[in-house]
Amino acid sequence: MKLKWGLIGGGEGSQIGAAHRIAARLDDRFEMSAGALDVDATRAREFAIRLGIPRDRAYGDWREMLEGERHRSDRIDLVTVATPNSSHFEITKAFLLAGFDVLCEKPLTTTPEEAQEIVCIARQSGRICAVNYGYSGYPMVRHARAMVARGDLGAIRVVVAEFAHGHHANAAEADNPRVRWRYDPKLAGVSSVLADCGIHALHMACFITGQQVTSLAADFASTISVRQLEDDALVAFRMSDGAVGRLWASAIAVGRMHGLTIQVFGEKGGVRWQQEQPNQLYWTPVGGAVTVLERGYVGLSPEAEHASRVTVGHTEGFLGAFGNIYGDLGEIMSARREGRAPQAWALSYPTADDGWRSVVAIGAAAKSARSRGSWVELDA
Amino acid sequence: MKLKWGLIGGGEGSQIGAAHRIAARLDDRFEMSAGALDVDATRAREFAIRLGIPRDRAYGDWREMLEGERHRSDRIDLVTVATPNSSHFEITKAFLLAGFDVLCEKPLTTTPEEAQEIVCIARQSGRICAVNYGYSGYPMVRHARAMVARGDLGAIRVVVAEFAHGHHANAAEADNPRVRWRYDPKLAGVSSVLADCGIHALHMACFITGQQVTSLAADFASTISVRQLEDDALVAFRMSDGAVGRLWASAIAVGRMHGLTIQVFGEKGGVRWQQEQPNQLYWTPVGGAVTVLERGYVGLSPEAEHASRVTVGHTEGFLGAFGNIYGDLGEIMSARREGRAPQAWALSYPTADDGWRSVVAIGAAAKSARSRGSWVELDA
Amino acid sequence: MKLKWGLIGGGEGSQIGAAHRIAARLDDRFEMSAGALDVDATRAREFAIRLGIPRDRAYGDWREMLEGERHRSDRIDLVTVATPNSSHFEITKAFLLAGFDVLCEKPLTTTPEEAQEIVCIARQSGRICAVNYGYSGYPMVRHARAMVARGDLGAIRVVVAEFAHGHHANAAEADNPRVRWRYDPKLAGVSSVLADCGIHALHMACFITGQQVTSLAADFASTISVRQLEDDALVAFRMSDGAVGRLWASAIAVGRMHGLTIQVFGEKGGVRWQQEQPNQLYWTPVGGAVTVLERGYVGLSPEAEHASRVTVGHTEGFLGAFGNIYGDLGEIMSARREGRAPQAWALSYPTADDGWRSVVAIGAAAKSARSRGSWVELDA
Amino acid sequence: MKLKWGLIGGGEGSQIGAAHRIAARLDDRFEMSAGALDVDATRAREFAIRLGIPRDRAYGDWREMLEGERHRSDRIDLVTVATPNSSHFEITKAFLLAGFDVLCEKPLTTTPEEAQEIVCIARQSGRICAVNYGYSGYPMVRHARAMVARGDLGAIRVVVAEFAHGHHANAAEADNPRVRWRYDPKLAGVSSVLADCGIHALHMACFITGQQVTSLAADFASTISVRQLEDDALVAFRMSDGAVGRLWASAIAVGRMHGLTIQVFGEKGGVRWQQEQPNQLYWTPVGGAVTVLERGYVGLSPEAEHASRVTVGHTEGFLGAFGNIYGDLGEIMSARREGRAPQAWALSYPTADDGWRSVVAIGAAAKSARSRGSWVELDA
Repeated sequence: MKLKWGLIGGGEGSQIGAAHRIAARLDDRFEMSAGALDVDATRAREFAIRLGIPRDRAYGDWREMLEGERHRSDRIDLVTVATPNSSHFEITKAFLLAGFDVLCEKPLTTTPEEAQEIVCIARQSGRICAVNYGYSGYPMVRHARAMVARGDLGAIRVVVAEFAHGHHANAAEADNPRVRWRYDPKLAGVSSVLADCGIHALHMACFITGQQVTSLAADFASTISVRQLEDDALVAFRMSDGAVGRLWASAIAVGRMHGLTIQVFGEKGGVRWQQEQPNQLYWTPVGGAVTVLERGYVGLSPEAEHASRVTVGHTEGFLGAFGNIYGDLGEIMSARREGRAPQAWALSYPTADDGWRSVVAIGAAAKSARSRGSWVELDA
Repeated sequence: MKLKWGLIGGGEGSQIGAAHRIAARLDDRFEMSAGALDVDATRAREFAIRLGIPRDRAYGDWREMLEGERHRSDRIDLVTVATPNSSHFEITKAFLLAGFDVLCEKPLTTTPEEAQEIVCIARQSGRICAVNYGYSGYPMVRHARAMVARGDLGAIRVVVAEFAHGHHANAAEADNPRVRWRYDPKLAGVSSVLADCGIHALHMACFITGQQVTSLAADFASTISVRQLEDDALVAFRMSDGAVGRLWASAIAVGRMHGLTIQVFGEKGGVRWQQEQPNQLYWTPVGGAVTVLERGYVGLSPEAEHASRVTVGHTEGFLGAFGNIYGDLGEIMSARREGRAPQAWALSYPTADDGWRSVVAIGAAAKSARSRGSWVELDA
Repeated sequence: MKLKWGLIGGGEGSQIGAAHRIAARLDDRFEMSAGALDVDATRAREFAIRLGIPRDRAYGDWREMLEGERHRSDRIDLVTVATPNSSHFEITKAFLLAGFDVLCEKPLTTTPEEAQEIVCIARQSGRICAVNYGYSGYPMVRHARAMVARGDLGAIRVVVAEFAHGHHANAAEADNPRVRWRYDPKLAGVSSVLADCGIHALHMACFITGQQVTSLAADFASTISVRQLEDDALVAFRMSDGAVGRLWASAIAVGRMHGLTIQVFGEKGGVRWQQEQPNQLYWTPVGGAVTVLERGYVGLSPEAEHASRVTVGHTEGFLGAFGNIYGDLGEIMSARREGRAPQAWALSYPTADDGWRSVVAIGAAAKSARSRGSWVELDA
Repeated sequence: MKLKWGLIGGGEGSQIGAAHRIAARLDDRFEMSAGALDVDATRAREFAIRLGIPRDRAYGDWREMLEGERHRSDRIDLVTVATPNSSHFEITKAFLLAGFDVLCEKPLTTTPEEAQEIVCIARQSGRICAVNYGYSGYPMVRHARAMVARGDLGAIRVVVAEFAHGHHANAAEADNPRVRWRYDPKLAGVSSVLADCGIHALHMACFITGQQVTSLAADFASTISVRQLEDDALVAFRMSDGAVGRLWASAIAVGRMHGLTIQVFGEKGGVRWQQEQPNQLYWTPVGGAVTVLERGYVGLSPEAEHASRVTVGHTEGFLGAFGNIYGDLGEIMSARREGRAPQAWALSYPTADDGWRSVVAIGAAAKSARSRGSWVELDA
């Protein structure tokens, strides 16, 4: 039997909503059973019905959905929260407390305190609380993590992460509301490009190395005069097992489309991965030649194999990576239902802890940037 | 309302079946309503039920499905034929005659005569008969076609297509049944790598240029002694509006994973596209610099825009391309239901005519190769 | 002591002349001692003097140079012939007969008969007669040859060579005399792009595999109406140890700058090399991953090491490759002077035999193209 | 008449010596007239003679060369100092004071004070004092500089420079004397990888933008325990016209060969250049597509055209870039001799000022790193 899935937010025309609908059902693990898809109750219901959701589960808002679902015998197994950032905390908390498993879009919350509260609630409830750092679902990212875990790289020395795009480079569009809010502290918080993009690169550094950021120093720059928040950031950091970190994030890097790239250098070898060519991982043992590991090729780790759908040489993209987060959750939930242990490959999905650490790191970086780049210890 | 979709073939563990299930539902146009998924009737039914198909539409074989569906008021709108090649003709013909729209896996049939019969039946029936040359669904391939159609390249001079992989290069595995049958004329017909892979490149040449192959000359080679059919092929061809064609296909190209590449050179400019980096199209106007067109970027053709799901810089892969074939069919079927003309972007999906021409081209190439590369005119 | 070198042709402003002057002296093996640099005797002498050649060896034409040098005790050790193609035969022959070592620009001659005569004269004279297929001087091309020779690839199955550029794609410039003569049989002979460019790719196929072309079939196309000779060519060929060959050459491939690329596929592995990124060789063993071999890295063959000047990661380009041909000749001539055997790495430079075979292959391809692609055996 | 050139250092087997000998003579501007090539006087003289230098100018040491040359009527026009770093100051100073033009290898000196003294002496003497930041000689780097200068990019917002290699990643070789001295403050000074490699990237940032570094903050890491100096460094900086800078340098980046890369982002567009593919410059106007500018193609700046030797699509490498520094100096010296103004393209070679600023920046970075990354203003 498929698992039952509900979505909050992601109304008609929303790209993130479409992505979740595709990802959740990609591997036939989930069916879409309920939704509160829009802030406008009428539009929410009508869109849900058009998507084939039964009328009685096409809800007008998330509270109605919580009430409607909590007492059903066939209630949803998993709810995805894809609403604006400011409501993540409230909705996630409510559904966790009601005993639902939750997948929350990033950022988990807008403050470290709220994030920590979610972490506690998730622990006490025993429910899954995942946070959608979706790039960690790419097969070759998972293979990189597996390589580090099994010791192929030896102790990790340096991690270099970047996320550079140029979509906010046009000064003439800086006042366009679609762009402007991202650089307004009242709406976007303490950080812009680092919180929006760089955090994915930072999460990936943690995901692959299995280490956490322990301290950091940041340099923020706003290169277009009307902006109050940074559109370019450089961060030096240290990690829990001694790795040294370098992170660059930029929204004004004209010519870069979606430059999420990570390089991990260890005592035995190094790997490099680029989001724009996600099916390859470049691996170099110390003293050896660069080799190109291909998604789908023989001899990869189980983690990579379970995250692949098509044969080598074909490409899998962003939606497949996204789908792998759902694949993890589906496996864990199925295993629970069947009274068995989940497969090991399913256990690396990003959790509330990751979400909390990310929020803490952003706060620390903003604090460092305000104090001319002094190092800040992370409490996390 | 979603369209109702049925699948024949693609049983449990089949990759092509999984790909169709993902692709058909990717954009919420189709729901899976019926299936005859396996040659073993019991397995077929059980797998269908596990996938959530109602018991009465979980069929044991395609004939049962045809009988079961033809008289239902909620009968399926589209059936996909993903069975072994030798049964494509019979099943496709039967469903067309019963008034169903059909998407058939390539090759449409195993002989030109059968292919032509399907073309005739499809025309008379007024039903859709699509053939799954799925690479034509890639957004930047569609953009290339749009560029040619609107004259950006001027008259096309030369098309260079290739499909090179190395997965059959290991002589020690040549007797592995999984590989061996492909080089046995009794099982694979008159051609191996050209029919299996090269034909995709040839279709793409036709798809992008809007021209048909009119004559060709081929050189086949079997580089491993136990093989009777070619594992490497070179084809020179001419097209209906004067374009000159070059095609190379290989299954022993060690180091190439899935090297489907096409270059089109016209009097005003040229384009290049590679399946392994499908989100980019390289465009060079005569006298100008190479420019990199990115899927999802502003200013692409409607054909490319409608074939994209995620923003620029993310990657979309093979399943998205596949899904675009279903998107075309869904749009046409929805338009028909709604009594309106379909959108123009939906009209380029590969048809029975394309399937027929491909089968004819393979036959001609095999004939040419047997006669030391003499030129063969295509009757198509 | 440096060897003494003379140049014929390559007058002021000539790029090929500058390239030879750089290449010959790159490694301090040769000094420029004499020259007949221009068809205009005055210009020839003046330019030679400006380049530092002594007045009595700044000659007005090649015959004067031959007479001037032949009886000097300090006569030149090597002469390079970089004149227009039609004079290669006469000059090369005369200098060989006078006992000079010669490096002749490609093509060695304009007819197979003349080429064969040069081969005979060179053999009888015991002099070096090299032909400047300069791309064979690239370190990683030499490494590829060494890999084949030592058996890394096993028996060679298929060679795929191409040389594609777009510099003659502009129809508006087709009548420009600088371009037009190349497509006029009276001036250019039986072939244009194949003879001018494709022949380099074909030589490289022979150079790397150590095999010769034994038969071929060609398809020529002239894509711009005023042209009589081909600007796009496809050739299928067979080689002396059984390798199958594919060659594409084009002068109208808009967007390609200097697309000389070669792929060699053997029973144990495959290599790929591209002239536009000449410092890397892509090597894939059967069943393994693609690995990137870097010029200058530890563990390459002696042939590659002797052809490198700067450390790994720096780039060496065309002039370095050119210089390696001179390096070979210098080593052989030095060894002869010193009464020792030359180093093994110096023995692969392209010879009059290669030049002859290339001329024969061009003639055979033109013949095949005229007879609709029938296979032609090479007499070579 | 060619200019007369002398070399100090660069003895037999030295790669940098060979590179200077090639570069100086690449374009027939200089002839090698004198040399003091080795610390061992006998070896120095013998090697010079073998290279064709007249016996009376084959010197045993630099002081002998200075005395020998200063009073000759045909004295050398330019001397290159390619000795160990610690002697650069003394030799450069002596030759400048004696009225010679000098090209000094980097670093100009080992302390800022000495560098400043050289700057003063060079100014007072009116002689050329160039410092060999040779990567600034690459044609497409010069084109990038020209694009910035003529306003194609608008005001520069962010510069991202990196120089990453992995040649010191092997811990087992950390005690090898060839590597070890670089991480010993007694021998290498205050910085290792930043001073050795990163400084090239920093100079390039200045060269292309035409701005100077005004302040910086650095994070140094020694990832192998026996090392006292950094093998990985991150630097944030600010430039004189407001550009924001990011620099990463590493010697333990396994898999990177010679990763000198620069990206410059301005208000109107951005460029990217990579040393390992030096013949291409990627240019993206705001709102437009990435375009690939090719060395040798029509329409480049005069600065790029004068720095090219071979036609588009061929590659030029490191020695050509090096040769362009000599080309600049040769043009300026020839112009002076001929009483005319030098060509504008010759005026961008790196000067003593650049050498001084680089030494100051290294000192500042080391100081910042010692004080936990606090920002340091540069006095330069």
